[in-house]
Amino acid sequence: MTTPEDVEAPPRTRLYVTDALAAGATLTLDDRAAHYLRTVLRLDVGADVALFNGRDGEWRARISAAAKRATTVALMAQTRPQTQEPDVWLLFAPVKRARIDLIVEKATELGVTRLLPVLTRRTIVTRVNVARLAATAIEAAEQCERLSVPAVDDPAPLDAVLARWPAGRRLLVGDEGGGGVPLRGAASAVGAAPWALLVGPEGGFEPGELDALRQFQFVTRVGLGPRVLRADTAVTAALAVVQSSIGDWSLPRGAEPMTVSPTTIPCKP
Amino acid sequence: MTTPEDVEAPPRTRLYVTDALAAGATLTLDDRAAHYLRTVLRLDVGADVALFNGRDGEWRARISAAAKRATTVALMAQTRPQTQEPDVWLLFAPVKRARIDLIVEKATELGVTRLLPVLTRRTIVTRVNVARLAATAIEAAEQCERLSVPAVDDPAPLDAVLARWPAGRRLLVGDEGGGGVPLRGAASAVGAAPWALLVGPEGGFEPGELDALRQFQFVTRVGLGPRVLRADTAVTAALAVVQSSIGDWSLPRGAEPMTVSPTTIPCKP
Repeated sequence: MTTPEDVEAPPRTRLYVTDALAAGATLTLDDRAAHYLRTVLRLDVGADVALFNGRDGEWRARISAAAKRATTVALMAQTRPQTQEPDVWLLFAPVKRARIDLIVEKATELGVTRLLPVLTRRTIVTRVNVARLAATAIEAAEQCERLSVPAVDDPAPLDAVLARWPAGRRLLVGDEGGGGVPLRGAASAVGAAPWALLVGPEGGFEPGELDALRQFQFVTRVGLGPRVLRADTAVTAALAVVQSSIGDWSLPRGAEPMTVSPTTIPCKP
Repeated sequence: MTTPEDVEAPPRTRLYVTDALAAGATLTLDDRAAHYLRTVLRLDVGADVALFNGRDGEWRARISAAAKRATTVALMAQTRPQTQEPDVWLLFAPVKRARIDLIVEKATELGVTRLLPVLTRRTIVTRVNVARLAATAIEAAEQCERLSVPAVDDPAPLDAVLARWPAGRRLLVGDEGGGGVPLRGAASAVGAAPWALLVGPEGGFEPGELDALRQFQFVTRVGLGPRVLRADTAVTAALAVVQSSIGDWSLPRGAEPMTVSPTTIPCKP
């Protein structure tokens, strides 16, 4: 049933595409998007969806053909201008399948712009399906109303990532050994600089590895409370604390440059 | 291989029991605990485990019999005195199975003392397996080094829970509609009072429901950043922000009354 509210609200279905988005354009959806619209949601010609590509904002589009071989959409109007999340990286040790998916999902919901799987000494999982993680990031971005999708790097040894660390970026390292400073204070000290969070594997860092991290000027070791957190909990919890302190949680929703749409699209269940 | 460090460290395996823990006692483990030690971990007579019951601190215990019909442990020495988490409740709308397990696991890791499933107007999942949630809470407590297990209430309508709300407890309500104040500031304003967090279902609260919540003096509606979070993400993120601001994350690990053991037991993978 269509109510006046529905007419004003952006479409509930959001899709990430790689094509350019511009007035009057018609796009042919890729297999993933076409399958999702036609088979999962059972949408047909005339239904509206929202599209974003990380560059051109969010657009209302209408399904113009839903044949088996090609599903096309016609772009109607831009509903949100493009914005960009604060520049936040997440370095994480790969963990088992369900947990690594959670890490990617939560990091995307919490605004991370680049995901870097890093191999630490106690990392048990060394094979990482980067394409699957990228797909998980896209789904999470579609769901959480982001206008961008975080980049997913190929896995690399932690040492190598640190050796080419960019000047000016702070690295907050979750230290379960008790040597870190409380995260909230550490976040405030980072201020407006770009930052990154490093969360180790379930078995923690080796002591020698933590000592080596301590040598880097850009590193601050942070405590994540009195209990031992699973890796995916640590990622969500630490990102939320820093975003609420110095990131894009620190402004009320209305004043947030990221937020343009006045209405809220609930997450899919 | 046993190293001097192993001898000093508390046992890596932690088990919640309901029996009293006291020097010289011998306990017969229940089926769950016996199965976990003998079949999952393949521990045998002579192996040490850590026991806690939420009242008597943490104890080192040694497996004294591992027969099929009865696995017994002998209590050796108390390794940590009992402490208590700050008094924090989580009210959450039941969601589908995997996500509700995550909510219970994360809330336990983040120190919640009481879990209250509440039925809101858009709650789709109304059947809640309280026994399974309680078991999930026990496993999470074992894993995260807590000395207590959160209580799990039977599900109740949100209205009923609010109608008998205790005096003096603040309720922070995650408001995805954009009407809330930034969580960090709201947390600071709660101060030292007992508090609770309410996170709604994936579809959000009905507008009328939010209006009704607004009438209660003990309610503060809080914003959870510019993106729409899944229910389990919202729980983890909001609890972490408040714990880091006014809860047991606000002190460094060494100064924390909850933390007594100087060593860290890594989570099981």
